[in-house]
Amino acid sequence: MASRCRAAPLLARVARRGPSTSTATPAAASVSTLARTQPRLQVRCLSTSRPRALQHTAPTRQVKFSSETYPELKRDERFNKLTQEHVDYFRGILGSESAVIDGVTNDKAADDIEPFNADWMRKYRGHCQLVLKPGSTDDVSKILKYCNENSLAVVPQGGNTGLVGGSVPVFDEIVISMSRMNKIIDFDEVGGTLVAEAGTILEVADQFLASKGYIFPLDLGAKGSCQIGGNLATNAGGLRLLRYGSLHGTVLGIEAVLPDGTVLDDLCKLRKNNTGYDLKQLFIGAEGTLGIITKVSIQCPQRSKAQNVAFFGLESYELAQQAFREAKGQLSEILSAFELMDGGSQELVVKVTNNKRPLEGEYPFYCLIETSGSNAEHDGAKLETFLEDVMEKGIVADGTLAENETQIRALWGWREGITEALSHLGGTYKYDVSIPLADMYQLVEDTRARVDAAGLLGDTDEHPVRAVVGYGHMGDANLHLNISTRRFDKRVEECLEPFVYEWIQARQGSISAEHGLGLQKKKYISYSRNDTAVQLMRRVKSMFDPNGIMNPYKYI
Amino acid sequence: MASRCRAAPLLARVARRGPSTSTATPAAASVSTLARTQPRLQVRCLSTSRPRALQHTAPTRQVKFSSETYPELKRDERFNKLTQEHVDYFRGILGSESAVIDGVTNDKAADDIEPFNADWMRKYRGHCQLVLKPGSTDDVSKILKYCNENSLAVVPQGGNTGLVGGSVPVFDEIVISMSRMNKIIDFDEVGGTLVAEAGTILEVADQFLASKGYIFPLDLGAKGSCQIGGNLATNAGGLRLLRYGSLHGTVLGIEAVLPDGTVLDDLCKLRKNNTGYDLKQLFIGAEGTLGIITKVSIQCPQRSKAQNVAFFGLESYELAQQAFREAKGQLSEILSAFELMDGGSQELVVKVTNNKRPLEGEYPFYCLIETSGSNAEHDGAKLETFLEDVMEKGIVADGTLAENETQIRALWGWREGITEALSHLGGTYKYDVSIPLADMYQLVEDTRARVDAAGLLGDTDEHPVRAVVGYGHMGDANLHLNISTRRFDKRVEECLEPFVYEWIQARQGSISAEHGLGLQKKKYISYSRNDTAVQLMRRVKSMFDPNGIMNPYKYI
Repeated sequence: MASRCRAAPLLARVARRGPSTSTATPAAASVSTLARTQPRLQVRCLSTSRPRALQHTAPTRQVKFSSETYPELKRDERFNKLTQEHVDYFRGILGSESAVIDGVTNDKAADDIEPFNADWMRKYRGHCQLVLKPGSTDDVSKILKYCNENSLAVVPQGGNTGLVGGSVPVFDEIVISMSRMNKIIDFDEVGGTLVAEAGTILEVADQFLASKGYIFPLDLGAKGSCQIGGNLATNAGGLRLLRYGSLHGTVLGIEAVLPDGTVLDDLCKLRKNNTGYDLKQLFIGAEGTLGIITKVSIQCPQRSKAQNVAFFGLESYELAQQAFREAKGQLSEILSAFELMDGGSQELVVKVTNNKRPLEGEYPFYCLIETSGSNAEHDGAKLETFLEDVMEKGIVADGTLAENETQIRALWGWREGITEALSHLGGTYKYDVSIPLADMYQLVEDTRARVDAAGLLGDTDEHPVRAVVGYGHMGDANLHLNISTRRFDKRVEECLEPFVYEWIQARQGSISAEHGLGLQKKKYISYSRNDTAVQLMRRVKSMFDPNGIMNPYKYI
Repeated sequence: MASRCRAAPLLARVARRGPSTSTATPAAASVSTLARTQPRLQVRCLSTSRPRALQHTAPTRQVKFSSETYPELKRDERFNKLTQEHVDYFRGILGSESAVIDGVTNDKAADDIEPFNADWMRKYRGHCQLVLKPGSTDDVSKILKYCNENSLAVVPQGGNTGLVGGSVPVFDEIVISMSRMNKIIDFDEVGGTLVAEAGTILEVADQFLASKGYIFPLDLGAKGSCQIGGNLATNAGGLRLLRYGSLHGTVLGIEAVLPDGTVLDDLCKLRKNNTGYDLKQLFIGAEGTLGIITKVSIQCPQRSKAQNVAFFGLESYELAQQAFREAKGQLSEILSAFELMDGGSQELVVKVTNNKRPLEGEYPFYCLIETSGSNAEHDGAKLETFLEDVMEKGIVADGTLAENETQIRALWGWREGITEALSHLGGTYKYDVSIPLADMYQLVEDTRARVDAAGLLGDTDEHPVRAVVGYGHMGDANLHLNISTRRFDKRVEECLEPFVYEWIQARQGSISAEHGLGLQKKKYISYSRNDTAVQLMRRVKSMFDPNGIMNPYKYI
């Protein structure tokens, strides 16, 4: 259960109005005076951490090897096997004993290596025997140069919080863990430019920035353990994209080491620099297949002084779209999140947490709106005017406003607790997709109908599927489609794939909105990218990494 | 003179306070009650157009050929010369008579071709004999395929409003004008995604969006004639970057034709799509050297309902930096421009326009602040509180707030009129650079001191340099250094170069913040990019354009 769910849902109720004075539906209501008169919080650090890395301590021995899950994958025989000589060379470079975890010459190191070999979801597991922890860009350069010359494959690894198996080895690739390169190098307090090493934990960077009145322009569930280098390598999206845009816009520069050891110093600190191709962009979202990002320069916005959260119930997806359009128009520059949850996803949270729902009635859809601005009074007034308006227009059936930070966390719990609730209930087929808004939720309905028609969905134990639910970042047209199962049943996967991917392709959606390709989606790229693009990508890959040592078997 | 300068500068004066109640300097003042009580405008289309293309009608015969200005440039003999056969082929593809301007077989076409041969500043001029105006992506594909197979060099041309000679030919390259491909294809009113052909004029796109309540996330002086494809190809920055970020963040997808005629359809309409390398990013800022952008998909923000503008006088650059920091903190999400002008630049505007200054006194520095938000009352209150605060703290010496659109335009005229004033006074050496904020203005001072020490600067006619001034987008650390001259004198250029570039390099600045490289800065790239980066760029160029037909002699 996510920590936020534990907060008591003691919320300012939006009172239903008596006789409506407008043409709105009977469900229309006004914001309570209580909500209107209460002061809002000034300055709040919105933390969404969930220490995924803690799961490293769980026993991972029983995780199935990826080489078994994907029997079609064969070890690339171009790569040499690790020897004592290789290990000695790396020890010579890295010096410190703790910077090398050697399972090549020391069988006892297996337990220490295991957390680097498997992902936190325990879906992917490699056969890695050597973990290297460089302490500097020069270390990374020497490691890659040697690996390139000696045909040794590598997997760059940040916080290992990915969801598609991109950061763990498949066979015996060397893991290059960036965790020791975690220094904040520079911060320009006037310009807001942060320069830090790639292994810096996202939450550490954000807390540093909070002390300066700034914010990292990215926030996601794994912030307590993910690293900013990994965030760039996977082009992480998360909760703040609606407000601050993607990393392609906020990252100003990178330092990266190319597969042959060359250091590409493109650590620009300027917002504008039109001198040649913007090479850094290729590394953002390349999932470690072109080189290793060692340092990051990023433009950080001022931290908002005020934050407000509202939670609505809505009668249809059509109305949720209308609410989004109204929120963009009326809340505009202060809108920082617009999240969608369907009734089914909220039911699962109730089932697992037993928490009291924030609204009295039950609705087929819920939205969570967050605003962030520089003036609590102004923001509160805007949000309340907005709420009154969407209720009077009959767009929103019921709603509530958080009164304090505890209530803000509690409301967020109804969005962020879904993943956790799902994981408590058994296996889940997860699809992180992007679809033009008008069609977005239809995918959940069509999938549910298909699973139901196949006789797989039901409340009783004979049905392998418990529920088909959808939720996500409506502001980014990013849907998380989740199929919650009671047990593994091959028929479920056959029912879902390639159906889901074909459905998305037909609507020009993306089969991976923010999670990337990794190992999981490598073979599905053609559903979202045409042959021309994929061929060009392969040429880019060959240009940067002719020997293919960087994160092999994955991506494209 | 820029049109905005013509508006009467009838501004709400910020009254100097009597005995100060704070510890502020005597210059501290409060915002006048007049300014406070006047209502602010709701909805305003901030147009900054200047029809650069009109200059096409000026006689360009006397513009010096670039091949003479740059005698070291030789025509690449790999490229074939145009023949009647080539022209016939293109006529066959394009059909319409007006789609081909043929100076190869028809001497009388020279006048029609001239506007495509020279730039609006009349600094660059090519020997082009053939202009093609494709009407579709298929046309572009057929043209490029033929050119690639027949070794014919091409120059893609949008509105031809660039500043570095990137969009005009040097020798006899074929100009491919995108002006006929100007359709708006699609707009998603909920998501705010615009899809349009590359030849769409920026202002046309913006006006279309205005009718839908949205705004194009880019605004610049040439909006009345520049094209969105050219904006992408040059990674235009402009006036809204501080608020909406760079095109690397807002562009969602492109369709582009590669040099061999292959169509790369990457016209994604999604904010999130993590499926492989983000190839479109390479085309943003590539200045037509990798292919031709034919369609653009871009994320557009809601149009702000309210806009406010304030204009300050400040006693030092240090105080201007403090004002910027305060503006970011206090105005935060509504701050849409923070422009810096030095006293010298304002003196030139006065000299040319004879307009009454917006402030009573004269100051070494001025700032213009613009806010854009969804609530005029809230924004006005924030701006006034901010003004009172920075005056009480002694950061700002004097200031004024615009009361209506005329006044907003008049205040903007003091910033936007500088370029125009300079052009009235004679030749100008212009540097569009980016330097970390703390050092930014020092470049102007050091350059002025150097020119002065060389005996070149003075008020009398014997001195070739009239003034060394600086202004620009402070919010983006983007400085426009301008050296206004009375006449050409070789000593001035020798005094300036490579001094300016070396100065910028020493501070890790950019020698081209937003104007690009083109022909003008091709040879200076090493001041802002290291050898590793330039070598990689050359490899990228070779991969995409092995025959080098795309916009040769320029960029890298």
